[in-house]
Amino acid sequence: MENKSASPTTGKVIRCKAAVARNPGKPLVIEEIEVDPPKAWEVRIKILCTSLCRSDVTFWKSEPPIAIFPRIFGHEAVGVVESVGEYVEEVKEGDLVLPVCKRQCGECRDCKSTKSNLCSKFGKDYRPNMLRDGTSRFRDLKGEVIHNFIYVSSFTEYTVVDVTHVVKITADIPVDKACLLSCGVSTGVGAAWRVAGVEAGSTVAIFGLGAVGLAVAEGARLRGASKIIGVDLNAEKFDLGKAFGITDFINPTNCGNKTVSQVIKEMTDGGADYCFECIGLASAMEDAFSSSREGWGKTVILGAEMHGSPVSLKSFEILSGRTICGSLFGGMKPKSDIPILAQKYLDKELHLDEFITHEVSFQDINKAFDLLLEGKSLRTIIWMDNDKLN
Amino acid sequence: MENKSASPTTGKVIRCKAAVARNPGKPLVIEEIEVDPPKAWEVRIKILCTSLCRSDVTFWKSEPPIAIFPRIFGHEAVGVVESVGEYVEEVKEGDLVLPVCKRQCGECRDCKSTKSNLCSKFGKDYRPNMLRDGTSRFRDLKGEVIHNFIYVSSFTEYTVVDVTHVVKITADIPVDKACLLSCGVSTGVGAAWRVAGVEAGSTVAIFGLGAVGLAVAEGARLRGASKIIGVDLNAEKFDLGKAFGITDFINPTNCGNKTVSQVIKEMTDGGADYCFECIGLASAMEDAFSSSREGWGKTVILGAEMHGSPVSLKSFEILSGRTICGSLFGGMKPKSDIPILAQKYLDKELHLDEFITHEVSFQDINKAFDLLLEGKSLRTIIWMDNDKLN
Repeated sequence: MENKSASPTTGKVIRCKAAVARNPGKPLVIEEIEVDPPKAWEVRIKILCTSLCRSDVTFWKSEPPIAIFPRIFGHEAVGVVESVGEYVEEVKEGDLVLPVCKRQCGECRDCKSTKSNLCSKFGKDYRPNMLRDGTSRFRDLKGEVIHNFIYVSSFTEYTVVDVTHVVKITADIPVDKACLLSCGVSTGVGAAWRVAGVEAGSTVAIFGLGAVGLAVAEGARLRGASKIIGVDLNAEKFDLGKAFGITDFINPTNCGNKTVSQVIKEMTDGGADYCFECIGLASAMEDAFSSSREGWGKTVILGAEMHGSPVSLKSFEILSGRTICGSLFGGMKPKSDIPILAQKYLDKELHLDEFITHEVSFQDINKAFDLLLEGKSLRTIIWMDNDKLN
Repeated sequence: MENKSASPTTGKVIRCKAAVARNPGKPLVIEEIEVDPPKAWEVRIKILCTSLCRSDVTFWKSEPPIAIFPRIFGHEAVGVVESVGEYVEEVKEGDLVLPVCKRQCGECRDCKSTKSNLCSKFGKDYRPNMLRDGTSRFRDLKGEVIHNFIYVSSFTEYTVVDVTHVVKITADIPVDKACLLSCGVSTGVGAAWRVAGVEAGSTVAIFGLGAVGLAVAEGARLRGASKIIGVDLNAEKFDLGKAFGITDFINPTNCGNKTVSQVIKEMTDGGADYCFECIGLASAMEDAFSSSREGWGKTVILGAEMHGSPVSLKSFEILSGRTICGSLFGGMKPKSDIPILAQKYLDKELHLDEFITHEVSFQDINKAFDLLLEGKSLRTIIWMDNDKLN
């Protein structure tokens, strides 16, 4: 298929820089790699900026066989379409896009339902490498395959992504703000909006005030919640959280002889209308559930339980009208919902700027890991082009 | 307050027959008792018929201090208002009413919300005896107090019930059919209708096919579910269940080396849209949850866990878009919703006749216990007037 406006690299292997993870938990190495052209249904993207999310760190620290190395991490990013493979009509060269880890084929039973965002066309498991043929488009200069991460791999100047994982956005929105919408912030805002359906005047408790937890607060603020209680061991998160609507703060170590649930019940006349768990600890999930109001309290689980522990619920607490549910990506269908959030940012409804606490150059990508591990950052924008760095 | 149309017993103690439970698990004794006139906000009701629900049996078998004796059990009934206490305007002498164990004051935060049916005006705990002053209106002829059961106590010719626990119904509906709506059947139908919101074409799995489980099937059938799977150890329940829309049956002992959840997932292309637990076993609650579909599966707990065991859920099963919730009385607000179900029966939409498997006279009330304990009955109607017995 000839394309007269194609870029000079169309159909060719691109040699570029990537931050390769060669060993679990070890600093990424910036090296030259080769990126194959997109196959059918695939899109090759020139990354403009990317950011670091907690799941990158989790898998970067994981030993094989859970993790696979060498690998290119990163799944929050914005880029420009460099070229597209056969059958791709949804985007074209030059389009501004977000590669996202959740897909939307638009055709399967889940995509057609208003109730699910877990596209089931290609199965629901995450496998390394490309969605359709299971091979990688990355290799080092010795010819060794470098693996993909959750169908995105954005810590590279160029990546290849299946078209079902690509969201087209308008060029109006600053790329660093748009970058935030590709995972964590959308997950939090979506959980308050799509999953919980937080209502005006309702009370909300959020366990864990990382970027996702604060994005839940932002979503609840947008929906008009009257009281948004943040629960975190780090008191500095309260100041950070005020910009996103956190009205009250609980440090579990300062509750005296009361449980967090007791304190929340006292603050909310019987329990919060909506509770969110954004840590990934079964005990916090249980506390969140117990903090929700009898009759209609709803608890939303966003965190992946980090020890694989089960969640143990008191059956009478369920029976008395409480609900617990979970969601991935905040119940958002990426292609349908991310553009709505982008517009809300442009309309000055949705706060995004405050999530960006740091910016680094691509060469300094390991600093982004340090900042997150030290609990100092919400989101660090990693710029591929040094000139973009403020 | 003079009432010229008052019955001759208005304001007087009534001497009548009641089936008194004097000891845990021992046959009820029909004896003469005295029933006080209704105090303010109370209604004295002449019971026409009553039926036996599983919770009567549970508390009848319980030892003190969980249970209290002597006591008058029974909480599914229909009666006629004999007289009313001060301030009662909602019903008057001669009205056909259901005394119900859930109340609806119409004024509290819960009653005013569309999301809760747990009236919170007088607290949410069940206490023995009358709602407002904590005393009983029953005593034996030696003057010993006989206690009330969950604000109803219908195993007596006359009872006194708080007006918030009284539902007025039209005289069009046969009283034995109306009787079923005062607890178990409403709970099941309501769980499918109000709590789950079962949709046309959806798949449903019901764990436990007692009257409540079969009422869930009836509710799901009314809502147009395409597949309603019943899970029970008793294969006879499948034949009983067909009248209420059960399309498929699973006996857990006949699943070979598969779990019930695996069988349900195979039958429903990945999991049922809606699962209901109507037994009261944590293990069945867990199985129900695992049988629900990723993305949108919803599990509703109706059974009170009989051993007090916690419900242990796999966190990744929650995270992948499943919901678990519980309800008492099927999420129904009794005064608002029971008349709707009565009308659906009159309109020949809702099946009720098939729940009545046996009828006995009041003198034979202990037979109703035997039939339920032997698993032979769904509902046994106990007629206060022998002439009504077919």
